[in-house]
Amino acid sequence: MRENELLASLPSLFHTDDPTVLVGSGPDDCAHVRTLGGSVLSVSTDAFAEGSHFLSDDRPEDVAWKSLAASVSDLAASGSRPRWAVVSLGMRRGAPDGWAERFARGLAGAARDLDIAIVGGDLVSSHHTTFISVTVVGEPLRNGPVLRSGGKPGDALVVTGSLGGSLRGRHLRPVPRVKEMAALLDFADSQSDRACGPNAAMDISDGLAIDLSRLARESGVGAVILETLLPVSDDARLMAAESGRSAIDHALSDGEDFELLIAMPADAWDAFQDRLAAQPDNGLAPFTRIGSLTGGRELLILDSAGEPRALAPEGYEHSW
Amino acid sequence: MRENELLASLPSLFHTDDPTVLVGSGPDDCAHVRTLGGSVLSVSTDAFAEGSHFLSDDRPEDVAWKSLAASVSDLAASGSRPRWAVVSLGMRRGAPDGWAERFARGLAGAARDLDIAIVGGDLVSSHHTTFISVTVVGEPLRNGPVLRSGGKPGDALVVTGSLGGSLRGRHLRPVPRVKEMAALLDFADSQSDRACGPNAAMDISDGLAIDLSRLARESGVGAVILETLLPVSDDARLMAAESGRSAIDHALSDGEDFELLIAMPADAWDAFQDRLAAQPDNGLAPFTRIGSLTGGRELLILDSAGEPRALAPEGYEHSW
Repeated sequence: MRENELLASLPSLFHTDDPTVLVGSGPDDCAHVRTLGGSVLSVSTDAFAEGSHFLSDDRPEDVAWKSLAASVSDLAASGSRPRWAVVSLGMRRGAPDGWAERFARGLAGAARDLDIAIVGGDLVSSHHTTFISVTVVGEPLRNGPVLRSGGKPGDALVVTGSLGGSLRGRHLRPVPRVKEMAALLDFADSQSDRACGPNAAMDISDGLAIDLSRLARESGVGAVILETLLPVSDDARLMAAESGRSAIDHALSDGEDFELLIAMPADAWDAFQDRLAAQPDNGLAPFTRIGSLTGGRELLILDSAGEPRALAPEGYEHSW
Repeated sequence: MRENELLASLPSLFHTDDPTVLVGSGPDDCAHVRTLGGSVLSVSTDAFAEGSHFLSDDRPEDVAWKSLAASVSDLAASGSRPRWAVVSLGMRRGAPDGWAERFARGLAGAARDLDIAIVGGDLVSSHHTTFISVTVVGEPLRNGPVLRSGGKPGDALVVTGSLGGSLRGRHLRPVPRVKEMAALLDFADSQSDRACGPNAAMDISDGLAIDLSRLARESGVGAVILETLLPVSDDARLMAAESGRSAIDHALSDGEDFELLIAMPADAWDAFQDRLAAQPDNGLAPFTRIGSLTGGRELLILDSAGEPRALAPEGYEHSW
């Protein structure tokens, strides 16, 4: 069985009738369970291996930040407040002196900056590959999680921040969009129409093209986005000058943006825009509408002349 | 900074004033946090690396069982009911065909047998070392966790099951003592004297001698145990016949028993024994008193002639 087949089989393999499991093993990066006391919890885990997810000469402080930020970002995208983390570190024999200590200090600093309590962990020896696994536990900000599967035709597609070129440095210290999701949910709660929150969301970790294809697939819809609306980062433009690829291409497929991709009712987006415009100094990353979900299954991107082409998502899925 | 120094520094490095953290990074294998809704959660994580914690030719089904059982055992020892788990698997390139699939199927089977819901995970590539990290979340069975630090002079020291020689096979499929801790806490709840529950507990993962030294140190007490009372396993006797070491020595230091070590008021132990004797078919592993906590700091073991010698604990601590 190949890796992608195995991954596809895991949700059914781990399917459970346990009524405490609200959202379990499946397409979402985050599970949601209900405690005996009635609290809902969100849990997300991510693993990182030397040579695959970070390099031997990356600064251990940066590795720590990114490891923690990835799961924090998953929880934020699911509409949860990330609160507590446990961290496993497997240290390769022969790793540079002080690597583990610098990782630990970096992790403590990241936890302070990201407002997470590190409540435990495990430090072990690993023969040849240093590895990290982070599990973050949090609580939904609203009644019920935000999933990938709730998008509806006609929803506005909205992203935070700017996209592409993260390898120029932003990928080392991604800032999970916890405040931004909280602001969106706070806005939704303040409206008399209760249906104006996000219908679906996820974080953009593997690039907008593939991540949008995932959200659309799970929601059973299509999507159309406009090149002219994409918030292309300065880094994407700088990389394009060197790579020979277009800045748009970098914005669509570079990955490691850790921005939010949100599907929400179009009129709610209009109202949310008004709210944001009334608070210009809100300290939030910008929100940008890039297109809409559609009733078909096609994923299209229109260029500045209105010419459509298919978005071609491909990549590797590893969460279950 | 050496590994043991680093480990010793982690609890202060990760110290937090967050009032939701009831028991955080420290000597216990399990953290306890309080949700906004007032529920208390228990969280424990364990990491396993090929070559360090399992061998390349171990059956992946056994590796899966043990990985899950270790954290389940930690939660049981802290007085919690383990409920949900997330699992990271880093697969070494060139691992045998089907290893990941067998691991996943084994994990699903272990989860069914141990009554845990696997609610998510991460599957990644690792260059040279296969690794696993398991995080289990649960809920305390009673009001407040059972820690290592609550033992009092005069407490009866009690263990479940039998000790030593697990390498003869029991180490592959340890059975976490969830039912046994639940029975003890259920007994305590049924008594009019509310102070008859366990004062301290942990699981015996690195051998009775070192794990008892940890419980005694955290509780600020000493301990005396009797060789004649130790529930020496048949496996320990069989290993002794080959190793040239005594069966008692195997029972004290072999590790991977995953039995409970409990400190509880001596009269509560007497009453609990009566309860157990009245239910001979309770399906529980046996409970055995092996000695007492004492007021000093010494750790002593008495032989059958009553001759004392010091228990010499040494080993490697990796959780924080």
